Amino acid sequence: MQKEITFKACYVKGAGDVSIEEKTLTYNSSEEVLVKVTRGGVCGSDIHYYLHGGPGDIRVQHPMVLGHEVIGVMITDDERNGTKVAINPSRPCNECEFCLNGQSNQCLNMRFLGSAMVVPHVDGGFCQYVAVRPEQCIPYDSQAADDVMAFSEPLAVAINAINRAGSLLGKKVLVTGAGPIGSLLIAACRAAGASEIVASDLVVRNRELAEQMGADSSFDPSGDDLSCYCAAKGYFDVSFEASGAIPAVQKNIEMTRPRGTMVLVGMPGGMVELPLTRFLVKEICLVGSFRFTDEYITAVRWLENGTVDPRPLLTRVMPYTEIVEALELAADKTKALKVQLSFG
Amino acid sequence: MQKEITFKACYVKGAGDVSIEEKTLTYNSSEEVLVKVTRGGVCGSDIHYYLHGGPGDIRVQHPMVLGHEVIGVMITDDERNGTKVAINPSRPCNECEFCLNGQSNQCLNMRFLGSAMVVPHVDGGFCQYVAVRPEQCIPYDSQAADDVMAFSEPLAVAINAINRAGSLLGKKVLVTGAGPIGSLLIAACRAAGASEIVASDLVVRNRELAEQMGADSSFDPSGDDLSCYCAAKGYFDVSFEASGAIPAVQKNIEMTRPRGTMVLVGMPGGMVELPLTRFLVKEICLVGSFRFTDEYITAVRWLENGTVDPRPLLTRVMPYTEIVEALELAADKTKALKVQLSFG
Amino acid sequence: MQKEITFKACYVKGAGDVSIEEKTLTYNSSEEVLVKVTRGGVCGSDIHYYLHGGPGDIRVQHPMVLGHEVIGVMITDDERNGTKVAINPSRPCNECEFCLNGQSNQCLNMRFLGSAMVVPHVDGGFCQYVAVRPEQCIPYDSQAADDVMAFSEPLAVAINAINRAGSLLGKKVLVTGAGPIGSLLIAACRAAGASEIVASDLVVRNRELAEQMGADSSFDPSGDDLSCYCAAKGYFDVSFEASGAIPAVQKNIEMTRPRGTMVLVGMPGGMVELPLTRFLVKEICLVGSFRFTDEYITAVRWLENGTVDPRPLLTRVMPYTEIVEALELAADKTKALKVQLSFG
Amino acid sequence: MQKEITFKACYVKGAGDVSIEEKTLTYNSSEEVLVKVTRGGVCGSDIHYYLHGGPGDIRVQHPMVLGHEVIGVMITDDERNGTKVAINPSRPCNECEFCLNGQSNQCLNMRFLGSAMVVPHVDGGFCQYVAVRPEQCIPYDSQAADDVMAFSEPLAVAINAINRAGSLLGKKVLVTGAGPIGSLLIAACRAAGASEIVASDLVVRNRELAEQMGADSSFDPSGDDLSCYCAAKGYFDVSFEASGAIPAVQKNIEMTRPRGTMVLVGMPGGMVELPLTRFLVKEICLVGSFRFTDEYITAVRWLENGTVDPRPLLTRVMPYTEIVEALELAADKTKALKVQLSFG
Repeated sequence: MQKEITFKACYVKGAGDVSIEEKTLTYNSSEEVLVKVTRGGVCGSDIHYYLHGGPGDIRVQHPMVLGHEVIGVMITDDERNGTKVAINPSRPCNECEFCLNGQSNQCLNMRFLGSAMVVPHVDGGFCQYVAVRPEQCIPYDSQAADDVMAFSEPLAVAINAINRAGSLLGKKVLVTGAGPIGSLLIAACRAAGASEIVASDLVVRNRELAEQMGADSSFDPSGDDLSCYCAAKGYFDVSFEASGAIPAVQKNIEMTRPRGTMVLVGMPGGMVELPLTRFLVKEICLVGSFRFTDEYITAVRWLENGTVDPRPLLTRVMPYTEIVEALELAADKTKALKVQLSFG
Repeated sequence: MQKEITFKACYVKGAGDVSIEEKTLTYNSSEEVLVKVTRGGVCGSDIHYYLHGGPGDIRVQHPMVLGHEVIGVMITDDERNGTKVAINPSRPCNECEFCLNGQSNQCLNMRFLGSAMVVPHVDGGFCQYVAVRPEQCIPYDSQAADDVMAFSEPLAVAINAINRAGSLLGKKVLVTGAGPIGSLLIAACRAAGASEIVASDLVVRNRELAEQMGADSSFDPSGDDLSCYCAAKGYFDVSFEASGAIPAVQKNIEMTRPRGTMVLVGMPGGMVELPLTRFLVKEICLVGSFRFTDEYITAVRWLENGTVDPRPLLTRVMPYTEIVEALELAADKTKALKVQLSFG
Repeated sequence: MQKEITFKACYVKGAGDVSIEEKTLTYNSSEEVLVKVTRGGVCGSDIHYYLHGGPGDIRVQHPMVLGHEVIGVMITDDERNGTKVAINPSRPCNECEFCLNGQSNQCLNMRFLGSAMVVPHVDGGFCQYVAVRPEQCIPYDSQAADDVMAFSEPLAVAINAINRAGSLLGKKVLVTGAGPIGSLLIAACRAAGASEIVASDLVVRNRELAEQMGADSSFDPSGDDLSCYCAAKGYFDVSFEASGAIPAVQKNIEMTRPRGTMVLVGMPGGMVELPLTRFLVKEICLVGSFRFTDEYITAVRWLENGTVDPRPLLTRVMPYTEIVEALELAADKTKALKVQLSFG
Repeated sequence: MQKEITFKACYVKGAGDVSIEEKTLTYNSSEEVLVKVTRGGVCGSDIHYYLHGGPGDIRVQHPMVLGHEVIGVMITDDERNGTKVAINPSRPCNECEFCLNGQSNQCLNMRFLGSAMVVPHVDGGFCQYVAVRPEQCIPYDSQAADDVMAFSEPLAVAINAINRAGSLLGKKVLVTGAGPIGSLLIAACRAAGASEIVASDLVVRNRELAEQMGADSSFDPSGDDLSCYCAAKGYFDVSFEASGAIPAVQKNIEMTRPRGTMVLVGMPGGMVELPLTRFLVKEICLVGSFRFTDEYITAVRWLENGTVDPRPLLTRVMPYTEIVEALELAADKTKALKVQLSFG
């Protein structure tokens, strides 16, 4: 049955052009469920839409609602009404070869909340209501804090990165870049049984946060002596690159042991120069990690039961009406890690 | 018991400086076995020693005997005397963490025939006799042809590359670069159950050879339309890069399917620019392949029983006394694929 | 659009009760495609339906058309008309968790040709026409022989068994039971790069066939000395059990090396006694293999291009009107391996 | 340099025949290091030596010192003197094919403390001093409690079982049998990132302990309704069998999902009847787990840093002079989980 609802939404129309507008949503209540959004986390890609009109080579072609790290409350006519849910922003087709092979994050027809990758774009979740497929709604304990549960999406990204590396049990792990994703990765590596976790970040505050999130130690890649991690062909069984910084990718080749694994999570823009012969000789495995599939459910469970506590990463919660201020704050890496919007 | 023998050997002393000299070898007959060398294949690294004094950043520090693709006949006092053997050039320490983990090709104390990677260098096998550990000698059927068996080492390199990719059974495979290693890879992919093998090379003769060695089809990367291999995010389950050409590495990212595997076998010198974000988003796995471990034995068996027939790749057999002419010929990619030296 | 067609079909109604009857098929031509059946192979389960009313604990509840190893010619109104196709008997739902995870052979709602596993049963392909989903039709070269292509289904079973074991490249492999599946497994192991294949069967003719299909050697498990395969904790990297004989499963635990893999393909009825402590101490991996997914396509390609030649296994081709005689012949293991029915 | 020392040791001479005797130990101080034993845990196999003369089919052929779960203090002439260490009871040859392949727990020449598997037997660690290879000594923080660190060996057994299953991250896990190994497995599964852990045990106290050690829930296999775990072909991604009870192995086949993994840790004696056709059809992977390799180091780290707290499992610490009483207590499953001996 077709239904319609009108509400406020945070639109991006181009670089530097973000504003609150009314949106009228039409949805099919037999296929989709309405969720009243309560909280949303600002992601790096939201910042790119605001600053540059889009991340990487992507640019918005028409006004689009931002946001994909959102949680809310189901609005239904049945017993699900009022259930608190984390919203998986992925809506794969479930019919392409990737969907039929457990790789729905590679779906050829993916509709991901708040993404301009396809045209017309898919509106995001920085608004008062969204309509999604029921399986996108992951219910969670009503006692769990919104502050915490709104980290479900970035934690899912971190867990997918770990799954790309295989078992971490007893492994020595390096995480370069201790921003929101890197810090969640550290906590997730701890939860996955890594025996030693070393973090790297240029910023002292991030290194401190990294240790708070579970790193055994941390270093400053611009100044500290890393020879101990390069000796005997490399120290780490697995390295995760979450900074997007090109020197980090290069240096990780030295610090990762032969036949070890390097996972790329942070997106370095443009072309990246790599010492491929060194890489080849060590037979390292470099693997990309993009979004997530079932990891979203694990993320919700881990936040709900306290396996991962993301609160040290939360800089501030602001009302959605201050979306521009929130984006400005989130863009300032010296001041902010994660900024959330409330839609209460 | 210490023994001594004097014979002729092909020495490299620096760039452009290769000559036949006498060598006196002292060996411990209780630990090593003497092998009379019969045939040796000229490898790309031998050419680099001749042209530049060494491959990559390596330069010979003192005169060194060239060669590591050698076969011969055991010279012993016991029943092994006269046995034809392929000589595995790898002599790992069997004590380091890599050796104790089935990764002896990454041995921290490897002594590989004809390599200036360590100082003092390890003399190679382009000479009349070598003394090696008994387990380096892989006996083969005395009916097998020297022409064929001298391909054991490069075929082992190819098989290691396949093992790095996991099972190829039923997979669509791309091999870029159809020189000696690439062509052997094609034959080995066929023997490993790949369902479709496509080869790429700039040179028409190499593409023809590739199809002779088992490729279903081939293309010219400089001119042919590759859009069919780039559609739907990429066609190939596994791609092997055996040309060392940087554009090949870059292009393979487009032609390899999401969550597919790219194996690097050819060494691109220096820094290589890669579109890492594209790579990341497709979650491709890029893995280096270096030398081999037990694959040497499989290579010997496959050549012995005809699973792989490398003879189309053999350009010419020359007496070792013509080492300089052989190196010149092998260095001319328009004329030669594999050149062998006979030590009869 | 609903269409209807009436033709002859081989029905089983219970133990010992198989006969030719008329069948009227109604199908939806917008979702299904009609195939005129040309050839069908008699499988062990067909024999069980005939002899006992069904395999294992399954019994037919109502008349059902037998057969799932069938090939035919597409009958359509478009350019596909006349195309020769092998018919994949699997029709998964493409919606359950297994289908969405690349494991459609475990589909919770599978409809497999000629199977009484679900009620009402799914009619099989031993009849003049079948209507199947287009993706169940795998076209093949019109020059390929029916004798050969009708082996697509059992070869797919064999290839799935190999995929359950991981890469066989360079591995030492044992296949116990050299009936139709075991013999195809031997050929498939050869095509997958196994370095040594040893076959086992009680019947001398089967051992000879096994060697003809690619085994390096064979033994008689009832008489031959197997101590060479049991020494040093076990000789084989991978063993495939295709006889369904309980002593074979038990003995394979002795002949498989520690941390090796045992694949079960043959179904031993009832409870099977295993020396589990011995199994545990050797840390063997025992894995079941059931039907296939994409392996069906690989099977069609391998038969089409001659990678596997199954003709030594074909005992006789009989007209479908002699279905009872064909089942009787196929049931006599001393006389027959594979019996095929022609529907010309 | 040969050294000699005489001290008290707990000998087993046959079924029911355990006593304290003097032992004179000769060791080579250039290859071995002397450790003064402080604490030792009584294992199920120690109980079997006491009750039956040995576990399984093994029987002591001559007096042997019991014990392999021991910790102590290094006695050396250098700076290591006084270091607290957990003693890895495994002494592999480091030369056989298994040792050279990262599978030293399958070493063909293993010398494992307190084991009658080889003749002459290897004396164990229930004595005042042992001489072991330096790499068998894993130093730990001197603040860590003996009560805790003496669980290193059984925890290593548990971690090896997890490694046999691959990554547990986000997986639903069943552990049947919540004795000392099963309970440590539960804690280790938690530390390895399992999303849900269900324990099974016949004894209510063990089920309570299981939940204390990290299980989300538990059931009584003799009475509780398990249909929820058997629906849709099975609930658990991975099941660990740690009871050695045959019905548990059988039932786990029903509760493990298709293509899931079952790990055997508990040793069921004699022949075990399994419904192999059911197992085959679900394509389950059954894998044995025996002892450990590098997992010993992870176990020491996890106990040292509190990742796993085994203290709920410790029933009592008794002086080694009460070895018989300790064995009697440990043998009474209604009263005891883990009993330790002190050698202070």
